[in-house]
Amino acid sequence: MAGGGGSRLWPLSRNNTPKQLLALVSARSLLQDTVDRLLELMPPENIVIVTGAHHATQARAQLPAIPARNILVEPAARGTAPAIGLALVYIAYLARAKDEPDPVVGSFHADHAITKVAEFQAVVRDAARVAEAGFIVTLGITPDQAHTGYGYIERGTALPNSGGRPAYQVAQFVEKPDRATAAAYLATGRYSWNSGMFLWKLSLILGEYARYQPELYGQLQAIGATVGTPQFETTLRQVWDGVRTETIDVGIAEKSRRMAVLPADFGWSDVGDWGAVAALLAGGAADADQNAVLGQHLGLGTHNSLIYSTIEGKLIATIGLENLVIVDTGDVLLVCDGNKNQDVKKIVEQLKAQGSSRYL
Amino acid sequence: MAGGGGSRLWPLSRNNTPKQLLALVSARSLLQDTVDRLLELMPPENIVIVTGAHHATQARAQLPAIPARNILVEPAARGTAPAIGLALVYIAYLARAKDEPDPVVGSFHADHAITKVAEFQAVVRDAARVAEAGFIVTLGITPDQAHTGYGYIERGTALPNSGGRPAYQVAQFVEKPDRATAAAYLATGRYSWNSGMFLWKLSLILGEYARYQPELYGQLQAIGATVGTPQFETTLRQVWDGVRTETIDVGIAEKSRRMAVLPADFGWSDVGDWGAVAALLAGGAADADQNAVLGQHLGLGTHNSLIYSTIEGKLIATIGLENLVIVDTGDVLLVCDGNKNQDVKKIVEQLKAQGSSRYL
Repeated sequence: MAGGGGSRLWPLSRNNTPKQLLALVSARSLLQDTVDRLLELMPPENIVIVTGAHHATQARAQLPAIPARNILVEPAARGTAPAIGLALVYIAYLARAKDEPDPVVGSFHADHAITKVAEFQAVVRDAARVAEAGFIVTLGITPDQAHTGYGYIERGTALPNSGGRPAYQVAQFVEKPDRATAAAYLATGRYSWNSGMFLWKLSLILGEYARYQPELYGQLQAIGATVGTPQFETTLRQVWDGVRTETIDVGIAEKSRRMAVLPADFGWSDVGDWGAVAALLAGGAADADQNAVLGQHLGLGTHNSLIYSTIEGKLIATIGLENLVIVDTGDVLLVCDGNKNQDVKKIVEQLKAQGSSRYL
Repeated sequence: MAGGGGSRLWPLSRNNTPKQLLALVSARSLLQDTVDRLLELMPPENIVIVTGAHHATQARAQLPAIPARNILVEPAARGTAPAIGLALVYIAYLARAKDEPDPVVGSFHADHAITKVAEFQAVVRDAARVAEAGFIVTLGITPDQAHTGYGYIERGTALPNSGGRPAYQVAQFVEKPDRATAAAYLATGRYSWNSGMFLWKLSLILGEYARYQPELYGQLQAIGATVGTPQFETTLRQVWDGVRTETIDVGIAEKSRRMAVLPADFGWSDVGDWGAVAALLAGGAADADQNAVLGQHLGLGTHNSLIYSTIEGKLIATIGLENLVIVDTGDVLLVCDGNKNQDVKKIVEQLKAQGSSRYL
């Protein structure tokens, strides 16, 4: 899944270059990193990307190893349930052609970062075995703090051990909690963060779409019937007009009785704000003053700050700063209190309201 | 006097474009503003500039109305006493040629800002009358705070009133005081800030050079003898090698018995740091949050800050900032706690030590 805009990493993320297309913390974009991680688990022709019309050209350019036809373009954003559904009917077509009609399929966000790649790959292999046994497996992230920005998953009964990391039936999904509730969850040791990554057998998930989202299922089948034919794009556009917005979490996962969670810890981040970028950069190498720096920085008495410049040769000099975010993209400079990262989207909203599209 | 570098307004002030050559708070440079103020008091051929070799070309380009020969180039910086002395012997040559052998001469810094120009001009006219009567008149700035960054002048006996603003004998010059001392000075009502601006009759000041700086006086006379001849530049260079560094304050003003002070208030600023620039900009028009802004700014919860960008079309977005200085020159970004403005020069020193001359 490589759709979505994301205004919380503005001014680096823009309408034309959303988060997943950015090389935020390495030389590769988050999308490229996501695909690279999976390419060690499967051949490139098995990887399918769903993206928006504005970003398809860049996605194809960033992913020369992926067959261009595997980069599917949503006519409009309709949430994760339709986006994943589109990929599923396309994958069903690929699977029939390969005479492997019921493969295990995984769904991954293209705008997350993972620092422990080998561990992630081992977890995916374990999760695939659980999916093979007939579960919708969600990768649960073992929390290291009482974060209020994520949904949580409570584990239930342990599933029979298939030799890998233990997996559990899902007791419940819970929405983003307040801090006290999050702390209580953490104390039980039974909760994971909902990463939004899933694995399932193709037949099982399509059956769940049919059961819980019958209208959408019918629409997807109509699209799926034209994959590989000249009618595909026209059908997709026509059907998509009538598709209602729904998320995979609410539309399927919270309803299904086949849900499992596999708790894991592979250095996951949803890169949800500049603080997350700072943490990822600093995880690589914070300087002596605990600053996360990309670019050329000279600091006096500057601590716990993010200094992020994409401008070749630019020097950022700082004096007497604490917990500040500084992001310079050349046409925009953002300077933000590190406790106010979430307000970046308010700036984006103001720019939209002003019609200042050149900065969006 | 248009010499000097000045690192406290870095990164805008650079080796090649020091403070006086910058258009900091208006479309004109501080040097141009200084000359403009004086052009209403005297013809351009009576204005003489002393500057450094690196800046002479720019000074000439900025001042097309001033005869190029009146822009004197110091071979090296030797402090204000030699710089003013050089101008004096050149002016003596001009005065002889005009058959006005003993004019009143004023010395003004080219890197100060003055907001009440008409008042400044009226003060200079009054001071010229006091100078005509045989005093070295220094323009004292009426303090509005217990500033610890300036020298102070205590007034003594009032001089006979010549019809203008009252002038006084100088009781004493005092060095930069601590805050308690400065507050005590303020309370007496008898102290002014030392602006470093002087007026005197040519014969009187040359006499004081002869009395208190005889070696320098001899050197200046040797130079003065060649003004208007082909030997001038060679002589200047050769003599200057042996000139010792001295300031007009220590070398002459603190020793002379002919000192007068004329207390004045014409919106003076020595533009000594970014806080002074902020005050000058905000004096024009602070925004609703008391920010001083040059450039395009979108702020959320940002107060008492300086936002200064010289880059056409660049947007500076700020969130949750208080008393911060942000200066963006394209190749350098400075972000500085507003209470740490004085540390800007430490950054410059570090860059010098690193040999990072491209930023200096």
